[in-house]
Amino acid sequence: MTETEHSTRPHRRRRDAPAAVRAIDYAHLANRLPRAEVFSADRIAAIHETALRVLEELGIRVLLPEARDLYRAAGAPVDEDSQMVRIGRDIVAEALRTVPARFTLHGGAPGRDIEIGGDALFFTAGAGCPNITDLDRGRRPGTMADFTDFIKVQHGFDILPKLTAWVEPQDVPIAVRHLETTRAQLLLSDKVPFVFARGQGQVEDCFAMIRIARGLDEASFRDRPSTLTIINTNSPRQIDKPMARGIIDFALWGQVCVVSPFCLAGAMAPITIAGALTLSHAECLAGIVLGQLARPGAPMMYGAFSSNVDMRSGAPAFGTPEHIKTNIAAGQLARHVGMPWRVSTGSASNAPDVQGAQETLLGLWGALLAGGNMVTHAAGWLEGGLTISQEKFITDIEALQVVAEVMQPVACGPDELGFKAIAEVQPGGHFFAARQTMERYATAFYEPFVWDWSNFGQWAEAGSRTATERARDIWHQRLAAYAPPPVDPGMRENLDDFEARRRSEGGAPPLD
Amino acid sequence: MTETEHSTRPHRRRRDAPAAVRAIDYAHLANRLPRAEVFSADRIAAIHETALRVLEELGIRVLLPEARDLYRAAGAPVDEDSQMVRIGRDIVAEALRTVPARFTLHGGAPGRDIEIGGDALFFTAGAGCPNITDLDRGRRPGTMADFTDFIKVQHGFDILPKLTAWVEPQDVPIAVRHLETTRAQLLLSDKVPFVFARGQGQVEDCFAMIRIARGLDEASFRDRPSTLTIINTNSPRQIDKPMARGIIDFALWGQVCVVSPFCLAGAMAPITIAGALTLSHAECLAGIVLGQLARPGAPMMYGAFSSNVDMRSGAPAFGTPEHIKTNIAAGQLARHVGMPWRVSTGSASNAPDVQGAQETLLGLWGALLAGGNMVTHAAGWLEGGLTISQEKFITDIEALQVVAEVMQPVACGPDELGFKAIAEVQPGGHFFAARQTMERYATAFYEPFVWDWSNFGQWAEAGSRTATERARDIWHQRLAAYAPPPVDPGMRENLDDFEARRRSEGGAPPLD
Repeated sequence: MTETEHSTRPHRRRRDAPAAVRAIDYAHLANRLPRAEVFSADRIAAIHETALRVLEELGIRVLLPEARDLYRAAGAPVDEDSQMVRIGRDIVAEALRTVPARFTLHGGAPGRDIEIGGDALFFTAGAGCPNITDLDRGRRPGTMADFTDFIKVQHGFDILPKLTAWVEPQDVPIAVRHLETTRAQLLLSDKVPFVFARGQGQVEDCFAMIRIARGLDEASFRDRPSTLTIINTNSPRQIDKPMARGIIDFALWGQVCVVSPFCLAGAMAPITIAGALTLSHAECLAGIVLGQLARPGAPMMYGAFSSNVDMRSGAPAFGTPEHIKTNIAAGQLARHVGMPWRVSTGSASNAPDVQGAQETLLGLWGALLAGGNMVTHAAGWLEGGLTISQEKFITDIEALQVVAEVMQPVACGPDELGFKAIAEVQPGGHFFAARQTMERYATAFYEPFVWDWSNFGQWAEAGSRTATERARDIWHQRLAAYAPPPVDPGMRENLDDFEARRRSEGGAPPLD
Repeated sequence: MTETEHSTRPHRRRRDAPAAVRAIDYAHLANRLPRAEVFSADRIAAIHETALRVLEELGIRVLLPEARDLYRAAGAPVDEDSQMVRIGRDIVAEALRTVPARFTLHGGAPGRDIEIGGDALFFTAGAGCPNITDLDRGRRPGTMADFTDFIKVQHGFDILPKLTAWVEPQDVPIAVRHLETTRAQLLLSDKVPFVFARGQGQVEDCFAMIRIARGLDEASFRDRPSTLTIINTNSPRQIDKPMARGIIDFALWGQVCVVSPFCLAGAMAPITIAGALTLSHAECLAGIVLGQLARPGAPMMYGAFSSNVDMRSGAPAFGTPEHIKTNIAAGQLARHVGMPWRVSTGSASNAPDVQGAQETLLGLWGALLAGGNMVTHAAGWLEGGLTISQEKFITDIEALQVVAEVMQPVACGPDELGFKAIAEVQPGGHFFAARQTMERYATAFYEPFVWDWSNFGQWAEAGSRTATERARDIWHQRLAAYAPPPVDPGMRENLDDFEARRRSEGGAPPLD
C-alpha cells in the first residue's frame, strides 16, 4: 500500500459510530507554539529606540484639545498651532509601567470571560465591513437584519468568544446605530460586546447599556472590563478626535482599548518592514500613553495591523510575506514593552475563493507565530474589510477550530505509546478493531463541519458542491439553530427604556 | 482612516511601476522558524524506546529473501516461515551511526543541486496520482501527455527544485512506463528526477538513463546522489518486495531513499498520535537499517507521513489537527535520531476549492513547524492523492512562494529603521513619494501571480473570476512559456538508443 493507493483497500466502515463529543474548550486557548523572530533582540531595541526618537523629536499631531491637555500636564511639549505633541521617553516609560500585563475581559456569564495576556489566545471575526455578500444575494450594503443574523450565528461558535460589529447596518441612522447594535449584542448573546469609539456621546450610551445588561453600577463597571474597542491612529503620526476621545473614555471607564495603528508599508508608513514598525510602534505608544494618563492602570492592548500595499495601485494586501513578517516583528515589540497584544489576519480577495482562504490562513499563520493574544478579522473578511462573506465566515471557522485543536496537549502515557495495540495487530493488518481503537474512536479526532471527506463518487453524486457552497447551507443551518441566552425580562425592559429615551433625544451623532 | 475605510482614500497610483525583479532564490531555502514540540524530550525518548521494543520484541515482516539475509547477517533473528525479522537495538544504533546527517542531491546543472539536512528546506509537488483534473476537461485518468505537460510547467517554478511523478501515465504500458517518464524528466528539465522503486529491473533502467543524462560512469554515479525515491512501508510492520528491493538498490547505488511509512492513525496504525508515531518510527528505522546494511553511509532520509482517518469511513484525512501534531512530533523524532527528513502536507478535498486550499495550507503550517527538510505533496494534490489538479497546483505555488519569502532575512539598518522617512512625511500624509519609497518600490514586496488585488469594481468588470479560474489560464500560460534546458544532442541520442533497446527487450515489469 502506497500513499496514493489507499482507496483500493477495503476499509472496515464504521457507520455505527456515534457523533463524536469532544470536550475541547475553544473559547479559552493557550498558544503553545514557539514564537518566531524576524529581528534580533538588538534590532528590536533599535526599533523601540527609533520610535521613542520619533515621539520626542518629531512628535505626533493630536486633534483633540483635551488629549493635548493630558499630554501637556504630563510634561510633554505641545504646540497648539500645529497641534503637535512631543512625548518624552520618561512619559512613555511611566505609561508602560502602569499598563497591566494581563487582565480579564468579562462576558455576561462566567464561561464567557476572556483572559487577556501571556499565552492566552482568542480569535474574532471580521469586522467593520460596509458590505456583506453571500452566494444567494451577492454583494450589497449591510443592514440591521444582517447584523442581527451575524450575532446569532456567531453566538453559537465558541471559537469566537468576543462579538464583532461585522457589518455596518446602513439602514439605521448613524445617530442611533450604536443603540441598535449594542442592544442586539446584549440581548442576542452573552459574549463580550464590541463598541466603536465614535465620540463620547455614543460611547457613554453603549457603556450605560452594558451596565444595564450586566447589572453593574458605575463604580463596579469601572473595575470590570466588559467591552473592547479598536483605536486606529491616523497614520502617519496623527490621532484624530474620535480616536483620542475613545482612548480617554475607555480608560476612564476601565474598559479595554486596543491601540492599533493601521500602518501599511509604502502608503501610510515607510516602505521597509522595520520602518513601518517604527511608525506603528511610536503611534501605539502615543495612544497607550494617552490612556494611561487618563487613568493609570487602565486595561489596554498593544495593537499592530501592519501589512504592505500593492505598489501598483496602493491597495492594501494581506497574507503577504510582508504582512507575516511585520506581524512577527510586532509580536517581538509587544513583548519588548510587556503588553498583551492584538494582531490581525485578513484578505484582499473579492470572493470567498481560494485566494481568500490562502490570504487569511497565511496571515493567521503569521499571527500565531507572532504570538498575538487576540487575532482579529479571522473569519469572513474580504476586500480588505470592505465586505464580509457569510460563506467565508463559515469556512474560516473550520480552520480556526483546527488551530484550536492543535493547541491542545497530547497524551503520551503507556497506553497511548501503543506497544500493546501494535502487538495485537498482525503485520499487514489494521487497527480498526483494536482495543485501543474501540476505546477511543468516537472522540479521538477532530470532526470537521465544512470539510467533506467522502470519496469522489459519493461527492459527485451529492452534487459536486464546493466547500463554499456547503458553507452557504451551514450558515443557514446555524442561523436556524440559534439558541438565545437567558435574558432577564426586567433587564430587557430597562434596556428598551434606555434606548427609547435616547432615541427620543435624537441619539448621539458621531464625533468628527 | 480606519481599517476598513482605506478604499475611500485617493491613493496615488503607480501605474508606471516596472515589474518587480526580486532576486529571491526559491530553490535553496532555509527554515528560519523555530521548531514546535508536541511532546517533551522524555516522551520522545519513550516513543523511540517503544519503537525499539517493537522491532526487537515483535519484529517486522520482510517479504524479500535478500533483505532478510541482510538483516540475518547483521545478527537479527529471522523466522523464515513467518518472514518475521527481529531487529536488535544495537543494529539500529549502528545504522544511525553510519547514515549521513546531510548530503547534496545533484541536479543537471550547478544551480539545480539541492542541499538536504540541517535547516535546508524544499518543496515538491503532489505525486503518484492516477487521475488528473482541470476546469476544462474534468477528472480523467492521467496520460503521458499530462505527465509531459507537468514536467514543463514544473520546470519553470524554482520553488519546486525536484521533479515529481505527479500523475500515472496510464496510456503507457507498465513495463516501459518508467522508461518514458524518466526520459521525459531528463530531456525536459535539468532538475533532480524522481524514480519509483518498482523492482530492480525498472530501477536499474532509470539509473542507467540518469547516468547517460548526467554523463556519469557507474563509479561516479555511486558517489553522486542524483535521484530520490519514496519508500512506503506496508504498515503495520511489513516491508514488501519492491520496497525492500528499492531500499537495497538505491543504497547500493548511493541514491537517495526516503523511508516514509504511511501510518494513518486508526487504520494502519494505532489511533493515538503517540502510538501511530511509535509504529511509524519503528518501520522507518527498519528501513533505514536495511539501507545502511546494504551500504553503510548511503544517503537516506527519515520519512513520516502520518495523519488520521475519518473514523466513519476509514478515508485518510489531511491538514487535520492530528496530521499537524503528528508532523510536529515526527520532526522531534527525526532530530532525535539526527536525520534529515521528509514531511508531507496533503488534501482530501474532491475539488480545487477552499477546503483543498485549507487542508494543504494547514498541513504545510504543520510541516514548517515540524522542520521537515522536504515537504511533499505541497502543490496540486486532491482526494488524498487520487487526483492532481492543474489549477490547485498553480494556486498552491502562490502559497509556497509566500512561505519562501517569509524565510528570507529582513534588513534593519539605519535607513530601514525609517526615522528620516518618517521625518520627511507630514502627519496625515503618505509615503508614496518619500525618498525611501522611491528607492525601493520596484522590488520591496513579493508580487503574487495568482492573487488579484484589484478592487471589486475592476474585478467584477474583468469577469468576477475566482483564483481557481485565473489559475486555469496561468497554467496554460506557463505551459506555453516553457523554455527547455540545453540538451546535448549526443546525450539525447544515447538516451533514445537506450530506451529503444530496452523497449525492444520488453522493458521491465514491476516487481510484485
